[in-house]
Amino acid sequence: MSNPTRTLADFLAGLRYADLPVPVVDRTEELFLDWLGSALAGKDYHPIPLFERYARRMGPGVGSGNAGSQILTTRELSSPYFAALVNAAASHVVEQDDLHNSSVLHPGTVVFPAVLAAAQDLGKSGEELITAAVAGYEAGIRIGEFLGRSHYRTFHTTGTVGTLAAAVAVGKLLDFDSDAFVHAIGSAGTQAAGLWEFLRDGADSKQLHTAKAAADGLLAAYLTADGLTGARRILDGAQGLAAGMSQDADAAHLTDRLGSRWALVETSFKYHASCRHTHPAADALLDLMQREGLAHDDIVSVTARVHQAAIDVLGAVDVPHTVHQAKFSMGTVLGLIAVHGKAGLEEFQRHALSDTNVAAFRAKVSMQLDSEVDDAYPRRWLGRIEAIDRSGQHWVSAIDEPKGDPGNTLSRAELANKFHRLVAFSGAASVAEADSLIASSWDLRHLARLDAQLLPTSNAEAATRSPA
Amino acid sequence: MSNPTRTLADFLAGLRYADLPVPVVDRTEELFLDWLGSALAGKDYHPIPLFERYARRMGPGVGSGNAGSQILTTRELSSPYFAALVNAAASHVVEQDDLHNSSVLHPGTVVFPAVLAAAQDLGKSGEELITAAVAGYEAGIRIGEFLGRSHYRTFHTTGTVGTLAAAVAVGKLLDFDSDAFVHAIGSAGTQAAGLWEFLRDGADSKQLHTAKAAADGLLAAYLTADGLTGARRILDGAQGLAAGMSQDADAAHLTDRLGSRWALVETSFKYHASCRHTHPAADALLDLMQREGLAHDDIVSVTARVHQAAIDVLGAVDVPHTVHQAKFSMGTVLGLIAVHGKAGLEEFQRHALSDTNVAAFRAKVSMQLDSEVDDAYPRRWLGRIEAIDRSGQHWVSAIDEPKGDPGNTLSRAELANKFHRLVAFSGAASVAEADSLIASSWDLRHLARLDAQLLPTSNAEAATRSPA
Repeated sequence: MSNPTRTLADFLAGLRYADLPVPVVDRTEELFLDWLGSALAGKDYHPIPLFERYARRMGPGVGSGNAGSQILTTRELSSPYFAALVNAAASHVVEQDDLHNSSVLHPGTVVFPAVLAAAQDLGKSGEELITAAVAGYEAGIRIGEFLGRSHYRTFHTTGTVGTLAAAVAVGKLLDFDSDAFVHAIGSAGTQAAGLWEFLRDGADSKQLHTAKAAADGLLAAYLTADGLTGARRILDGAQGLAAGMSQDADAAHLTDRLGSRWALVETSFKYHASCRHTHPAADALLDLMQREGLAHDDIVSVTARVHQAAIDVLGAVDVPHTVHQAKFSMGTVLGLIAVHGKAGLEEFQRHALSDTNVAAFRAKVSMQLDSEVDDAYPRRWLGRIEAIDRSGQHWVSAIDEPKGDPGNTLSRAELANKFHRLVAFSGAASVAEADSLIASSWDLRHLARLDAQLLPTSNAEAATRSPA
Repeated sequence: MSNPTRTLADFLAGLRYADLPVPVVDRTEELFLDWLGSALAGKDYHPIPLFERYARRMGPGVGSGNAGSQILTTRELSSPYFAALVNAAASHVVEQDDLHNSSVLHPGTVVFPAVLAAAQDLGKSGEELITAAVAGYEAGIRIGEFLGRSHYRTFHTTGTVGTLAAAVAVGKLLDFDSDAFVHAIGSAGTQAAGLWEFLRDGADSKQLHTAKAAADGLLAAYLTADGLTGARRILDGAQGLAAGMSQDADAAHLTDRLGSRWALVETSFKYHASCRHTHPAADALLDLMQREGLAHDDIVSVTARVHQAAIDVLGAVDVPHTVHQAKFSMGTVLGLIAVHGKAGLEEFQRHALSDTNVAAFRAKVSMQLDSEVDDAYPRRWLGRIEAIDRSGQHWVSAIDEPKGDPGNTLSRAELANKFHRLVAFSGAASVAEADSLIASSWDLRHLARLDAQLLPTSNAEAATRSPA
């Protein structure tokens, strides 16, 4: 009986840096910087300090021989387990990290924390880090596609599948052969967890999910390297992940064009600082208002025509009580776009909860399931809105590829600009440090060895800023 | 809308040591010793040394201020996270830890590692440890019953529900109020994981599940104490645990007779060193052979009439390749009973794989679904076997309460004897140390303060023994 996990493992074991097309290497460097910006932007943002204190309480102390990886927000060194834990929590909190459409997986926030922490711990090169990250993206995206839409309805795919993506990435750094990949996938898959229920309360679980996915994946890989065995068919076995947590799993996705399709380059950068499900409608509204010269108070109603998953994920939030909840409120996002022309970190922080114009616009917004949009999802995220203005005129607007999607991507200059904005927002690094991180990311492939210290211990910038 | 999690949390917050009936305190001390024996018996047993090395690599070094809890197998001190991780892995590997029937949960192996590690870290008393353990058992058992048989079909309940039981127990030590319990249950529930798929390969995931359940539950509780919020209805919400991982969940179980039913005292001690699903048939066979004076080679066929879950869990193993796999082989267990009269740790180690008489007996054993047995399960675990001897005579044997069940329990003398056998098996402690642990467990309620060092650092006994 053929085992798709074995086929995937064979591919992962055989993957070499030299096999990667240049655009894949380019994009990996870009995704790395984009992730780094998200991680630094999370500094001091609730609940990140809780994870930092947990690492301090449970992990090795400063100066311990185990402290070979860096917690980016505090610049402290810890063991790779805790560095992965904290950095993964931090990089998912401002909702600016990358997303892969058809898998509905945020690969960066689970792959890079694990792979950076392990690469620092093991003293690996830029080439090795890039190859490992590609392995994590390629496996994670295919596993996300495999588990399908029914999985995403209840489970936060970035939490569940993220555990597998992180394990694969760290396994690649540990030079796993095919057998070891199968075991690591088994041990990661049996730890996969993360439920959407927290959205209803605006609870902190989203960061817990990414933290645990990165750290648990790393744990699976390190234990596998030491001899822990895992189930050979955790993905499609009779008592495996799909059997327990999906109704529409399709094993063909697991091995889809391995070595010729590079799923990593299909990943989207986030432009707005909100849940990705709001972006297509946000772009369509922005386009309409700019095109027709409409102001926010010209508009009396907006209907966002969306896919079902947008209703599942966003439907739980009516009037948001926290900035993080506001990122999942379609009305708030469209209100920020309508009133302020953008929905960036600054707009959320300043206007999402307290601006009466934004609140008034939110009350005009509704969502409606659209069969064309739903059929295209998750391969394509179509933006369709209908609006009515004060004169009773009806407007429609359509966007087929939201800003940041592969066909409408961000340039290196735009990514550098986003990075500066993210870092300035939290004060996690100085402008000079940000410039240096940008330069080294754009040339990551030539880095001889990852140092435990990505940033110097002292952070003069942060000391002069108050927490966000 | 009434929230059963809130009702459960109110009960947990209000629970006081003074409320516990004496038989509950007595049984908690007995379950603690029984768990301690299982944890010590796991010393040097694959894959436990892997977890020990992981803790050494990722955790605080010896002498660090964070090292306030003891890893029992190595006697090293570590942070409570890693002590819980290793001790939970160790206490589930020899299949001698306790089991609660109707929830199909092994509560001890997930509750005690977490609660002991946290009690040592926080310097709590024996009374506080007992109260916290009771909280963990009462909540975990009810949550296991709530998720039902459909959950157990694919998920290893001790892994999934164990995370919640451990979080509740540690939360009680941290003096949680009702709100904090709701948050901790939310953060634990969204981490719940563990699939049965590993059984097919005899992989190491069973120990990974208990390790992670205890450690993740502890993590949820410590982060909750620092302010992490969780979903308010992670158990029965629309995108919660039951929605994603059960088809027959019944919320009435969550609040079943809180404060009057003490589910902890319904917990069974394990007599045979095998998967609990083999015990009813093993007792029935032993009874038949003793009653009728039959020898193993008198018998030509045995049919164990079982519940469906026994087939689901045991069915995957035909001829076992490892001692651990043999514990899930009905034929091997009945073979050990028939040939050696017992299926203890020593019998498994010496005879399960290499004894040709046992192998010959295994080939005579089959399982068949029995509707009476299945209807009674999981509330009652009935043992029913049919055997045919060489003369063609048919025999039947029935056991309604396997040895170790609440109505057929082990006395303190039997538990002390089991403890000595477990500790001698691995050499994890000397006879004098075992006697001292027995004495202090029988008087746990009067212990003023849990010391980080349950056992002295030096283990003269272990140094003279070779690994199992």
